[in-house]
Amino acid sequence: MTEVVDRPGGSGAAANRTVPNNSAAAGKAGPARAVSRPQLPAQPAVDVAALGEQLLGKWADARKHARDLARHPELHKTEGLTHTEHRSRTFGQLQYLVDHNAVHRAFPAALGGADDHGGNVAGFEELVTADPSLQIKAGVQWGLFGSAVMHLGTEEHHAKWLPGIMSLEIPGCFAMTETGHGSDVASIATTATYDAGSREFVIHTPFRAAWKDYIGNAAIDGLGAVVFAQLVTRGVNHGVHAFYVDLRDPQTREFLPGIGGEDDGVKGGLNGIDNGRLHFDHVRIPRTNLLNRYGDVAVDGTYTSPIPSPGRRFFTMLGTLVQGRVSLDGAAVAASKIALTAAIRYATERRQFNASSHTDEEVLLDYQRHQRRLFTRLATTYAAGFAHEQLLQKFDDVFSGAHDTDEDRQDLETLAAALKPLSTWHALDTLQECREACGGAGFLIENRFASLRADLDVYVTFEGDNTVLLQLVAKRLLADYAKEFRNVDFGVLTRYVVAQATGAAIHRTGLRQVAQFVADSGSVQKAAIALRDEEGQRALLTDRVQTMVADVGSALKGANKLPLEKGAALFNQHQHELIDAAQAHAELLQWEAFTEALAEVTDPGTRKVLTWLRDLFGLSLIEKNLAWYLMNGRLSMQRARTVGDYINRLLVKIRPHALDLVDAFGYGDGHVRAAIATGAEKTRQDEARAYVRGQRASGNAPVDEKVLLARTATSR
Amino acid sequence: MTEVVDRPGGSGAAANRTVPNNSAAAGKAGPARAVSRPQLPAQPAVDVAALGEQLLGKWADARKHARDLARHPELHKTEGLTHTEHRSRTFGQLQYLVDHNAVHRAFPAALGGADDHGGNVAGFEELVTADPSLQIKAGVQWGLFGSAVMHLGTEEHHAKWLPGIMSLEIPGCFAMTETGHGSDVASIATTATYDAGSREFVIHTPFRAAWKDYIGNAAIDGLGAVVFAQLVTRGVNHGVHAFYVDLRDPQTREFLPGIGGEDDGVKGGLNGIDNGRLHFDHVRIPRTNLLNRYGDVAVDGTYTSPIPSPGRRFFTMLGTLVQGRVSLDGAAVAASKIALTAAIRYATERRQFNASSHTDEEVLLDYQRHQRRLFTRLATTYAAGFAHEQLLQKFDDVFSGAHDTDEDRQDLETLAAALKPLSTWHALDTLQECREACGGAGFLIENRFASLRADLDVYVTFEGDNTVLLQLVAKRLLADYAKEFRNVDFGVLTRYVVAQATGAAIHRTGLRQVAQFVADSGSVQKAAIALRDEEGQRALLTDRVQTMVADVGSALKGANKLPLEKGAALFNQHQHELIDAAQAHAELLQWEAFTEALAEVTDPGTRKVLTWLRDLFGLSLIEKNLAWYLMNGRLSMQRARTVGDYINRLLVKIRPHALDLVDAFGYGDGHVRAAIATGAEKTRQDEARAYVRGQRASGNAPVDEKVLLARTATSR
Repeated sequence: MTEVVDRPGGSGAAANRTVPNNSAAAGKAGPARAVSRPQLPAQPAVDVAALGEQLLGKWADARKHARDLARHPELHKTEGLTHTEHRSRTFGQLQYLVDHNAVHRAFPAALGGADDHGGNVAGFEELVTADPSLQIKAGVQWGLFGSAVMHLGTEEHHAKWLPGIMSLEIPGCFAMTETGHGSDVASIATTATYDAGSREFVIHTPFRAAWKDYIGNAAIDGLGAVVFAQLVTRGVNHGVHAFYVDLRDPQTREFLPGIGGEDDGVKGGLNGIDNGRLHFDHVRIPRTNLLNRYGDVAVDGTYTSPIPSPGRRFFTMLGTLVQGRVSLDGAAVAASKIALTAAIRYATERRQFNASSHTDEEVLLDYQRHQRRLFTRLATTYAAGFAHEQLLQKFDDVFSGAHDTDEDRQDLETLAAALKPLSTWHALDTLQECREACGGAGFLIENRFASLRADLDVYVTFEGDNTVLLQLVAKRLLADYAKEFRNVDFGVLTRYVVAQATGAAIHRTGLRQVAQFVADSGSVQKAAIALRDEEGQRALLTDRVQTMVADVGSALKGANKLPLEKGAALFNQHQHELIDAAQAHAELLQWEAFTEALAEVTDPGTRKVLTWLRDLFGLSLIEKNLAWYLMNGRLSMQRARTVGDYINRLLVKIRPHALDLVDAFGYGDGHVRAAIATGAEKTRQDEARAYVRGQRASGNAPVDEKVLLARTATSR
Repeated sequence: MTEVVDRPGGSGAAANRTVPNNSAAAGKAGPARAVSRPQLPAQPAVDVAALGEQLLGKWADARKHARDLARHPELHKTEGLTHTEHRSRTFGQLQYLVDHNAVHRAFPAALGGADDHGGNVAGFEELVTADPSLQIKAGVQWGLFGSAVMHLGTEEHHAKWLPGIMSLEIPGCFAMTETGHGSDVASIATTATYDAGSREFVIHTPFRAAWKDYIGNAAIDGLGAVVFAQLVTRGVNHGVHAFYVDLRDPQTREFLPGIGGEDDGVKGGLNGIDNGRLHFDHVRIPRTNLLNRYGDVAVDGTYTSPIPSPGRRFFTMLGTLVQGRVSLDGAAVAASKIALTAAIRYATERRQFNASSHTDEEVLLDYQRHQRRLFTRLATTYAAGFAHEQLLQKFDDVFSGAHDTDEDRQDLETLAAALKPLSTWHALDTLQECREACGGAGFLIENRFASLRADLDVYVTFEGDNTVLLQLVAKRLLADYAKEFRNVDFGVLTRYVVAQATGAAIHRTGLRQVAQFVADSGSVQKAAIALRDEEGQRALLTDRVQTMVADVGSALKGANKLPLEKGAALFNQHQHELIDAAQAHAELLQWEAFTEALAEVTDPGTRKVLTWLRDLFGLSLIEKNLAWYLMNGRLSMQRARTVGDYINRLLVKIRPHALDLVDAFGYGDGHVRAAIATGAEKTRQDEARAYVRGQRASGNAPVDEKVLLARTATSR
């Protein structure tokens, strides 16, 4: 419990905690009811405060500060606005962030920032709880536009533009994507041709497909832009570079001569952001507006770059984009936490159908299916959260310069490309499942699931389309495979490769030991123990990644030496497998992050419960891919059949701790803001129960026709 | 091609048809390019017009009429409206439907209707393409409110209220759900107590949980309502009955005395409908306002009913709800068709990354993963569509009275409960996948995926929560199992039971034959032939349902004889399996419907292509549940490993016919209305290509730095 966040657990959460009704969830009703009472010594307890601190991670202070801010009603999304009204509100909120000194942490200390990259992203992520439009619009302004000037520009650019960008005097755009090219940035068609005569670059849009598109701040607010274009000088195209371009007259807010655009209009969500299109008709800008850190053009038109290889130069410049992916990964986890907090609180109060007694209806969270729906996602959210913390650490290491080799940057890129797809898809899945788990009430905007889901929808395709990102990961895995594990030191990203290279015997043996154990014991129950074993899960998950990569690697062997078209066709024949392998790799990273975090938990009760949750995550992954384990002889039929039962038993164990596990997220009513999670449901039920009791006591209660019929039948 | 719909295929669809670029999709690029040219005799062709007619089904005329109407811009959703504006527009559209004589087909001929239940629902479903709010608001008015008066009331009620309901003079509510009870309708707490002294019913809301909630037309428009309440007379509660209640003064539009309410506010979608809450404080209505077809109260308070069992009476009255489920099933299929039409058209034009050539970029639909994402959903959409046609037929049989026994009604209920969950979840999944497959453009409202998805979201929980419905199906399957297959004649619903009872040997043998075949041949390729075989798929899918039901049935044996709490706990321990079994059953029904429809296709080319699509559906189901088949010894490891490859080969075969398969849905530009599917993308690419060509011809094209470097390296 901290000073800056409001009370986690909120208004209605406590009531059901002390005596969870767990009767239907546990196999044997009587004992289960007893087991679920926390006062019995057999039942471990979660130290919510300590777990909460652990979840806040290394940048706890930045998170707390941002969460405190995110509780301010001025920053909350107002539902039901038109997109025009919403845009205007969001722009005002950006100024509010500036006024509250909330968005400058990453900028140079010399300009009033703090050179704190990890803390900046951590705080930024938390804004999603206030309004995802606010988060992303802030991301456009400071995370993309500002960052591009900072990372791609040099000191003169910093001095000239960063103060205005930081203060919001210059709202701006990150104008990279074009209608014709999104994922394939290298092929954008806007040109910046150097004119040595006038010492200017000429920014030009040659055709409609080259219009900049989906650009935040472009439709209304953007006064400036970092425009990505093919740099042409002396008849040579040096590839994509970034240019600072003034877009609108600060007074009239009209486009400057030669610049035009369109409004992208209403979107599926994030309507607080004015996305739009831009095009340039031979717009002239000073030579010095080239953000020249990685490539420069001299007055006479000579091109120079500290990075000789055009390919490497391109990827270095694009590297600034990784911050967006890191942020989305964290924001997706935060949104999943908000949704699960609301849905699980409601499910501990809401009752429907009286299956197990004539009077009391079942609490939703005591239904097995409801537990499956929510707890498996709770487990994944924990895993994604711990994995994000590792990603953030890696990001800070690189951007702070603490560990900033080429290899570090590549590892960071690959790690972000692996985790962002999983966490953003997971957020959509979780928001939807929570919405459905709350029925019609879940569909009301006052409960926020549908609103958050609509806003987060685009997280899965922007800042790198998830499917494309996973292919980047797959290519890296294949490259590592091709190197035959010679270069083994690339950190968490390819830990499995490390294992393969340095300790293949351990893992292989681990797996064989497990298999042997099952064969020896021949006992279904003992087989489950092996699956629950950390090393058993690790062996299964690791082996799957290794084998999948090796299989595709073998199939593609020599593809690079084939004629281009044939090589591409061969590659395409294995595209589905490749993406699956990348996903398996990313899931393993999540599982490892969860397991490493577990090692840091000191409280035994918390560790016990979190271990169940980690097992649930691991077993859910194994269950999802059970066919693979069976087809490839990694699990026997008999053992595979125990997985589902073991998951069901974990659900029952986790049930009494569900509220603690969401309370540890640390989000209070001011963040959750769901009518459904305020205890209102319990109040309504108490009132209804009191009414029925009173009616019975008064003797005025009508007799049920069914009861009457039963009596008549008996009396005959 | 029909007169009433506009040109399927739309403006931009034709261009890519003649020479689909299939190079990357097929294993060997050269020959594949040749194979994909329709003029070669080896390539079958789809008879789009004939297939389109088949898809329109038995009520083709009603569908065509409704589609013609749905093209009218007056009925289209205007995006970006506030919920207040949207509500007002939708109400106006209801009047437009009345004026165009579009919504009275199901009502009695004597009152200007046509007594045509199947045609009515078929037409109603198509309105989803104009605006789902319009569809559902029309459903509230005529499908729920009007239907309740028609089916639960008697002639006096019909004469008194139906004309006003039909003409929209009386907009009204179907006030069943309460804040405290949604899925468990039998437990609603609103009471209707008969007062013999005044010959009135007193409608009363005893506490907050008993407020009617999520009720369409309640917040603003509803003048009347069919209110569901516990009927109490002479001290006996006869269970839930329906009462006609005037809500608002037709002049002032204010609530009548004793009635109050609240606006449910903004929702995740369907904001054209004014959902709200209602409560009643001892509101008195005439005795004759009881809709008394299935239960009546005499002047002296004597209760009578043609159905002695209160349980059966309740389910009979609720039976009118099935129409809603049938309609949602059909509307979900229609929305899936719209989404796939747009996404597949775009994917045949959009290009990104030049993997297989130095100049041309790949068409998205030639990527294997893209084919997987879209074609598997295309196959499921066909299956769901054919299954829906069977459901509609069954519905019409019952409601027309042609086949209206108790058993028919139960079969209809179970069939609707099985199909509605699958098709509505499928629609959300398809809309989302199509939106993601179109990247950032997919997120723009102008391309409609996000808008349709938001509106259809609640389809999965209203008119019967999908998870609850599947449990109803499971219970029916268990009941049939318990009967040991004595009553075998319940039509399509339990065809597998029929098979089990009358031809178990055939199926068992079928499965064994397949297994034997694989064992004998030992050939992976031949095993794939067996999987592709219709009987092979049927055997696998059928066996799974049978075995799952039998397994759970055995586990639950005697649960009914246990004390209530223990029985419920045992049941709950198997809830997850039960729901999975119900889903497997529903999937089998879809597969069978697809297979039966296939038998009606006369054109050999069409049949060939549709057979691939059916196989893709069947194999996708088998792949999804591959772990089950392996764990239970139904497939060998070797054979299981062929499933994925076989699916990949089917994708390549289907690729050249993708546009034909969506064109056969028969939706034109006026229905699809997605900027992305108008051919604009191709136009942009043609322009870009012409520009590049022109630049090269002029000799002014800049040289790529990479090319320059390569040249330099060579010249050294």
